[in-house]
Amino acid sequence: MSGPPAFDTGFAQQFAELLRWRRDVRRFRRDPVPAGLIDDLLAQTQLSPSVGHSQPWRWLAVTETAQREAVQESFRRCNAEALAAYEGERAALYARLKLEGLREAPVQFAVFCDHGTQRGHGLGRQTMPEMLDYSVVAAITQFWLAARIHGLGVGWVSILEPAEIAAALGAPPEWKLIAYLCIGWPEEECAVPELVKAGWETGR
Amino acid sequence: MSGPPAFDTGFAQQFAELLRWRRDVRRFRRDPVPAGLIDDLLAQTQLSPSVGHSQPWRWLAVTETAQREAVQESFRRCNAEALAAYEGERAALYARLKLEGLREAPVQFAVFCDHGTQRGHGLGRQTMPEMLDYSVVAAITQFWLAARIHGLGVGWVSILEPAEIAAALGAPPEWKLIAYLCIGWPEEECAVPELVKAGWETGR
Repeated sequence: MSGPPAFDTGFAQQFAELLRWRRDVRRFRRDPVPAGLIDDLLAQTQLSPSVGHSQPWRWLAVTETAQREAVQESFRRCNAEALAAYEGERAALYARLKLEGLREAPVQFAVFCDHGTQRGHGLGRQTMPEMLDYSVVAAITQFWLAARIHGLGVGWVSILEPAEIAAALGAPPEWKLIAYLCIGWPEEECAVPELVKAGWETGR
Repeated sequence: MSGPPAFDTGFAQQFAELLRWRRDVRRFRRDPVPAGLIDDLLAQTQLSPSVGHSQPWRWLAVTETAQREAVQESFRRCNAEALAAYEGERAALYARLKLEGLREAPVQFAVFCDHGTQRGHGLGRQTMPEMLDYSVVAAITQFWLAARIHGLGVGWVSILEPAEIAAALGAPPEWKLIAYLCIGWPEEECAVPELVKAGWETGR
């Protein structure tokens, strides 16, 4: 049993670099990712904080072609509706953005929150029941950083209809979709967010 | 402009230790925390992922005695109600848990999500508007890890009535409370979650 670790300046600086280079990735190489690496990352993600130690995250690997096509179809429809809500220059800019890597990413997960879990016995979520969902977001955030340490990129796709994804994957009714993640080796890396590069924030 | 960093095995192992020793802390020493350190951590937290690069997190420092007492009062009431919902041995176990460090923690933040922000122009949250709240959770998760690198403990208190906290702090109506954080130097450190040590999960 070793005592609490002390982290030196070098580690703090590297951690700052990790935060800076953790990016939402939408351009993936198709090279496979070792299954053992994903297993290790998921095992480590169990260390994430969760309300009442409920650990309500449920990682569902999306591997079948039919499932992936259903996700792409949901994205196409939702993205077309999103585009239709913009006008003029902003619509033109939106149409040029690449917002997902659903066809290329070799590893994909739908991450759910199990609202039926008894773990934690409800502790800490009487007045803020959303804490259960937040616990899953914390786990995704830690997974994201851990993946980047190993050079893996993660892209969080939210332009989807959660009910369609849950149905396509056969998720239990008490599972709520929190995130759809594309995972793989990035085509290129950049410390500047794609939306900043594209001028999304500054454009009118 | 330096290229993408590569993280070696040593960093990966230290990062694993960081995750293992990042704990929800409820027992704080009262020693002050340098304001510059908190400022640095908050600046670094700007690097957190957010939907459409919206950066909707709003960190409100809770410093005044009257504000802190209002938070403690909300906790007392919510915790009494939570206790009343348990029975028998579990109620006795719940009553023995220390679930917050509201009186001791030298630094405290209420963290809100600004539902009124125009940043990001709605990108990525047409079908999943909850993405805005999730972005704040991601920022809190990264803050938590960064704080622990410097030896600081963080405790997330959710046994509170969000409307009471928002009112006590005078938060704008479009801000939603995501978390109340106690921050300070921990009295002791342990890699085992407090709830596991207390037998909360295994007890009947």
